[in-house]
Amino acid sequence: MRTPDELREAIEAYLAGCELAPELGGLEDAIRYALDPAGKRIRPILCLAVAESAGGSVEEALPAAAAVELVHTFSLVHDDLPALDDDDERRGRPSTHVAYGEGVALLAGDALLAEALRLALGYDDPRLARELADATLGMIAGQFRDVTGADEDLVALHALKTGRLFDAAVGLGVWAARVPDAEQAPWRAFGADLGLLFQAVDDLLDGDGLVERLGVEAARGLADEAAARARERLGAVPADTSVLLELVDGLAVRTS
Amino acid sequence: MRTPDELREAIEAYLAGCELAPELGGLEDAIRYALDPAGKRIRPILCLAVAESAGGSVEEALPAAAAVELVHTFSLVHDDLPALDDDDERRGRPSTHVAYGEGVALLAGDALLAEALRLALGYDDPRLARELADATLGMIAGQFRDVTGADEDLVALHALKTGRLFDAAVGLGVWAARVPDAEQAPWRAFGADLGLLFQAVDDLLDGDGLVERLGVEAARGLADEAAARARERLGAVPADTSVLLELVDGLAVRTS
Repeated sequence: MRTPDELREAIEAYLAGCELAPELGGLEDAIRYALDPAGKRIRPILCLAVAESAGGSVEEALPAAAAVELVHTFSLVHDDLPALDDDDERRGRPSTHVAYGEGVALLAGDALLAEALRLALGYDDPRLARELADATLGMIAGQFRDVTGADEDLVALHALKTGRLFDAAVGLGVWAARVPDAEQAPWRAFGADLGLLFQAVDDLLDGDGLVERLGVEAARGLADEAAARARERLGAVPADTSVLLELVDGLAVRTS
Repeated sequence: MRTPDELREAIEAYLAGCELAPELGGLEDAIRYALDPAGKRIRPILCLAVAESAGGSVEEALPAAAAVELVHTFSLVHDDLPALDDDDERRGRPSTHVAYGEGVALLAGDALLAEALRLALGYDDPRLARELADATLGMIAGQFRDVTGADEDLVALHALKTGRLFDAAVGLGVWAARVPDAEQAPWRAFGADLGLLFQAVDDLLDGDGLVERLGVEAARGLADEAAARARERLGAVPADTSVLLELVDGLAVRTS
């Protein structure tokens, strides 16, 4: 079993070496800038760790893991635009639209989404790409609810905006490892709790979202419960889940 | 064989009735607005006509045809944004971002692309979705070259920006009709000429693009040659191509 750091190296190398559509020409610069290695790569590492735990090979799961990361990156590039969250900085440097202009950033985001689907479509099994397309729609729906400020259950909003892509990271991992449909439920339950844990800790670090809505203590409580449930779910999976446990522990105490 | 008008009715009915991801909620309004029936529907009609000419059923090809139209609509919504072409009007009414705001239009475009891939992924054969994803990347690459003003062969630019989706309309039509790979070449050659015809006539109507670069006469010449070649290609296809011939004739003399 590879450690999270080894999986991170594997996905960085894969992303650095993966060929984009050659027609993209100069647009590739902006896409590569957005994909810059300063990202945490939590979703692709999760995808690879699930695939390996479930008896699959990391190599076979790499395109799936990269596809999930490309969808995540597409969402960051578009969400940072002035028309949405208007963030000039991302990961300590200028956002893609600040570096390349809004028009190019818009097209770079579009291309990232199309490339993500192309990667997922490289598998013979169309269920990987289907799951990724569905998750993308859920994520977009979450961002729509967020920016239009519909006053609703924030946990439900997070389940769309963040959770759906975490679910897909786990889902593409088990599909890549050829886990039969009927045996996927415990893996997927784990993914849902991990997504909630990630978002609750994110809000605790930023002091917004769940913290604003429920207060620090309640948000901390949600995170702890999600972490406990995620560990419990892993106990129910008949596989070596030590690396996934390490991921849960890392997410529970992360400080950035 | 159904006439172009009958095919148009079929695609309108399919689009009006097709269910979007339920999570999209209020974003569906903006998506439906962008998909409004004032569109010419040339690409999906082409897809359906090719499928039926090639011995397939219109019903089976409808999701493929709709997927192509959704990709086209996604590109219009994003291209109209101020960061790109900054068009306030589309088909005689306010563009999506004027009607719904830039942020919502951005997300509506993203959702249209994801929904398009989801429709194409409804087929057992993943080659339909692969072809659509590839064509989308080519189209985005064409728009990038267009907005960044790289001074290059305008015919090559049109082949990306407009041509790739025309190619995909034909390609998804033959896949939906289960035409074997080895027998697709004449259909695809026809699609390439039809795309060029469409774009040349577009530039003649708008007085830009090829007209600006080459003058009216040369652009008219290109259109006439493309129409002649398209008719010739259809003569080489061992099928009833009368409806496709009608499409060529309609595109050659269209005035809007």
